[in-house]
Amino acid sequence: MLVPAFVDIYYGNDDWSVFLASALTTGGLALASALATHTREPVLSTRFAFLVVTVLWATVGLVGAVPFYASSLRLDFASSVFESVSAITTTGSTVISGLDSAPPGILMWRSVLQWIGGIGVIALGLFLLPILKVGGFSYLRIESSDIEDKPFSRLTTLSQALLAVYFGLTVLCAVAYVAAGMGLFDAINHAMTTIATGGFSTHDASIGHYEGYAIRWVGTVFMLLSALPFSILILMMVRGRLDAVRDPQIRLFMTYVGIFVFLAALERTLGAHVPFGEALTAAAFNFVSIITTAGFASEDYTLWGPLAVTLAFLATFVGGCSGSTAGGIKAYRFLIMGRMILNGLHMLVYPNAIKSVPYGNRIVDAQMQRSVTLFIFAFLFVWALASALLAAGGLEITTSITASLTALTNVGPGLGPIIGPAGNFAPLSDYAKWILTVTMLLGRLEILAVLVLLLPSFWR
Amino acid sequence: MLVPAFVDIYYGNDDWSVFLASALTTGGLALASALATHTREPVLSTRFAFLVVTVLWATVGLVGAVPFYASSLRLDFASSVFESVSAITTTGSTVISGLDSAPPGILMWRSVLQWIGGIGVIALGLFLLPILKVGGFSYLRIESSDIEDKPFSRLTTLSQALLAVYFGLTVLCAVAYVAAGMGLFDAINHAMTTIATGGFSTHDASIGHYEGYAIRWVGTVFMLLSALPFSILILMMVRGRLDAVRDPQIRLFMTYVGIFVFLAALERTLGAHVPFGEALTAAAFNFVSIITTAGFASEDYTLWGPLAVTLAFLATFVGGCSGSTAGGIKAYRFLIMGRMILNGLHMLVYPNAIKSVPYGNRIVDAQMQRSVTLFIFAFLFVWALASALLAAGGLEITTSITASLTALTNVGPGLGPIIGPAGNFAPLSDYAKWILTVTMLLGRLEILAVLVLLLPSFWR
Repeated sequence: MLVPAFVDIYYGNDDWSVFLASALTTGGLALASALATHTREPVLSTRFAFLVVTVLWATVGLVGAVPFYASSLRLDFASSVFESVSAITTTGSTVISGLDSAPPGILMWRSVLQWIGGIGVIALGLFLLPILKVGGFSYLRIESSDIEDKPFSRLTTLSQALLAVYFGLTVLCAVAYVAAGMGLFDAINHAMTTIATGGFSTHDASIGHYEGYAIRWVGTVFMLLSALPFSILILMMVRGRLDAVRDPQIRLFMTYVGIFVFLAALERTLGAHVPFGEALTAAAFNFVSIITTAGFASEDYTLWGPLAVTLAFLATFVGGCSGSTAGGIKAYRFLIMGRMILNGLHMLVYPNAIKSVPYGNRIVDAQMQRSVTLFIFAFLFVWALASALLAAGGLEITTSITASLTALTNVGPGLGPIIGPAGNFAPLSDYAKWILTVTMLLGRLEILAVLVLLLPSFWR
Repeated sequence: MLVPAFVDIYYGNDDWSVFLASALTTGGLALASALATHTREPVLSTRFAFLVVTVLWATVGLVGAVPFYASSLRLDFASSVFESVSAITTTGSTVISGLDSAPPGILMWRSVLQWIGGIGVIALGLFLLPILKVGGFSYLRIESSDIEDKPFSRLTTLSQALLAVYFGLTVLCAVAYVAAGMGLFDAINHAMTTIATGGFSTHDASIGHYEGYAIRWVGTVFMLLSALPFSILILMMVRGRLDAVRDPQIRLFMTYVGIFVFLAALERTLGAHVPFGEALTAAAFNFVSIITTAGFASEDYTLWGPLAVTLAFLATFVGGCSGSTAGGIKAYRFLIMGRMILNGLHMLVYPNAIKSVPYGNRIVDAQMQRSVTLFIFAFLFVWALASALLAAGGLEITTSITASLTALTNVGPGLGPIIGPAGNFAPLSDYAKWILTVTMLLGRLEILAVLVLLLPSFWR
C-alpha cells in the first residue's frame, strides 16, 4: 500500500493519506497477530494447509478492499471486495467505470494487488497444490523426469529464482510496452497485470485505448509467456535449459491457442473482408487474452461474427498451463482427459486391455486421474449452481452463465451487453457481486481446496 | 408404414400410395437382405454389438425418412433425415411448420416412428448397453439386489412384459387424453409420443393448442412414468411389486424434478403475480417435459423470467432414469458423480481413507465409475465440438450451444428465437441439420457406443 501512497503523493492526489492509513492499520494488525502467535508452533498438516490457503486468500481480499472503500472513488462494500478479490485472483473483472480519470494511486493499487496475486498463484501451483493433490505437477517431479539433473536442491533457491524471473519478466514487459509507444505509468501498470495474466487496465477501453499493432503483439507475447509453467520458465531463464520447453502441456496449449486464433481471424477475413494481418493481430491479442485468462480486450470481439462469440465462450473454459498465473481447466487436465477418453473407449471394445495414461515420458497415476475427474465434476456443479443463483437474482441467461464461468476460470470479461468485453461489472447487484466474489476465490484455489472445507469430516 | 397408409386411406389423403410404396420397397429390401444372409451364423462379439447398434439406428433413420421425402410435404433430403432421426431418437425437434394442416398419414408416421424408437431405446438401455458397459444397470443386477427374487427367468418373458407394459401405458395415456378433452386422433398420436418421451405433436403450438389443466396434468403424469426405469415399471405393473419404486435413481429424479418445477412456478408467482396453481401447472408440464426429454411445450416458458430460462438450460442436461425412453445425463450418473465428488474430497483430506460408492444397497464398481467419467468427458467434448461447428455455419451463440445440447440430450427444443419452444428447426441450413442429426444419434446411443467406431483399434 506504500507504493500507491507514493504514487499519489507524486501526482499530488489526496488519496495518499488513505493508503498510508490503510498500510499502518493492516501492518499494525498483522504485527499484533504475529506477536500474539509467534510462540506457538504451527501445526503442519494437510487440513491446516487447506484452511490456511482459503483463509489467506479471503483475508488478503478483504484487506485489499480497504483502499477501494476509503478512497475518493467511494465504492460500496460489496464492490470494494469484488474489485479486490478480482485483483488477487488475477481475474480482472472490474466494477470501476471511468478508469481514465481515476486517481493514479488507485490504478496502481489495482495493478500491484494483481501482481502480488499472480506470484501467490504461481507459488500455490508450484509448491502447495500438487502436494495437496488438488492440481498441477510438483516441480520436483517435473524436474526429476523431464530434466535429468535436479537444478534446485533447496526450496529457497527455487523461490528466489521464481521471484527473479517474475520480476524480470515484468520489467522486460514494461520496457517492451514503452518501446511500443505506451507511456511509462501505463506501461508499468499493464506490465504488472500482463505478467499476472490479470487483465486490469488503466483505461475503460483496455488495450483498445492505444493505436497500432506493436502494443498488441507485446501483450500477446508476454501473456503467452506468463501462461507457461513457471518451473519451466525458471529452468529456461536461470539455467539456460531451452529443451525444457518440450513439455507436453506447452505443446497442447500452443496448439489450441493457434486453432482459436486462426479460426477467429479466418472468420473475420472471409466474412467481413478485414485484411488477414489486421484480423490476425486482433484475434491473437483478444483470444490469447481469454485463453491465458488475462482478460484484456482491444475491441469488442463479440461483434466479429457468430463463430467468434462461440469460440470466446469455449476459450473461457480452457485456460493456460499449470504452475502459471493462468486459470481455467488448464492444458494438463485436457491432456489427461483426452487420454482417459481414448483408453476408456479402447477398454469398452477390449475389456481386458489395461492402458496407462502417459504424460510426456511419465505415467499419470490413478490418484492424479481421480483428481482431474473430481475437478471437472466439481467445476460443472459449481458453474451450474452459480449460474442458477445469478439467474435467481434477475440476470438474463447469457450474463448469468458467462459471469459465473468467467469468474470460475478467472478470465475477466463474459458475454452479453453488461459484462461483455465492452462493458463491466458495475451494473450488477450486490447479491451478484458477492456470488461472483466467492466464485472467483473458488476458481483461483482450484475449487477443491475450498470445497473440502464444506465437508463435515474436515472439521472432526 | 402400413399404419399411416391406412390412416391416409381413411381420411382420403393421396399420400397412402407413398406409404404403401415405401412399405413394399423397404419390406422387399429387408426380406432380400434377410434371405441373402440367413444361412450365416451371426458373429456375437462386443465389436459386432457396437457396430450393429449404430448401423441399425442409422438405417432405421434413413428408411424412416423416405415417406417425408416422398410425401406431399416434399421435404428435402436433409430435412427428411433430420425429422426421421429426431423421431427414432425420441428427440422431438421438428422441421415441419404447418402441422395443423399436415396430412394425417404423415402425422401418424411421425408418432409411430417415435413410438418404435422409444421401445428400441428401452430395449437398448435394459439389455444391451449395460452389458457393453456404456450405460445403465443390467436388469438382472437390479433384480438380484433391490428385489429378492428373480421374477423373470428368461429374456423372452421380460421382453414380452416390456412390450405389454409399453403398449398398456400408451393405451392408458390415450384414454386419459380423450377423457381430458382431446380428440381421438390427437390422443393416439400424443399418447405414442408421450410414452416415448419424444415430444412430436400434431399442432405447431404443441400442447399449447389445448385449453385447460386436465390435458397438461395427464401429459405430466405419463411423461414422469415413462422416464422411470422400465424394469421397475414392469415389476410394479406385472408383478404388483410396489416396493420396487424405492430405487435411489427414482428418488433423485423426483427430487430434482420437484426443485425445478417449484422454483420456476415460484418465480412466476412472485414476479408476474400469476396464481400459484396456474404457475405450477405450467411449470410442471413444461419442466417435466424438458427433464424427461420429451420436449412438448404448452407455452413459451422462455418469457417467464430470467430464472426460468437458466433453469430450462440446466434442465436440458439432467434427463430421466436409465432403462427408460428419456435421454440426457440421467439420474444414476448424477448419483454416482455426487458420491465420487464427496469421496474424492474426503480422500484429499484423509488420503488413506478408502470409500466405496454405494448405489442403494449395492456398490458401484470401478468400471462403472470409469464409464460415468468417460461419458461426462465425451459429452463435454461432443457438445463443444458440435456447438463450434454450428457457429462456424453462422448460427449465433444461443442457438448453436443449445441446439447441440438439446440434440445431444434428445430433449427437443432449445433456446433463442429460432429453436426455442415457440420456434422450430426448419430455418436451419442443411449443414446444421446434418450436424444435429449426427448429434442426436450420438446422444441416443449414449455417445460412447458410437465413438468406439472411430477408434482405429476397433477395426483391427
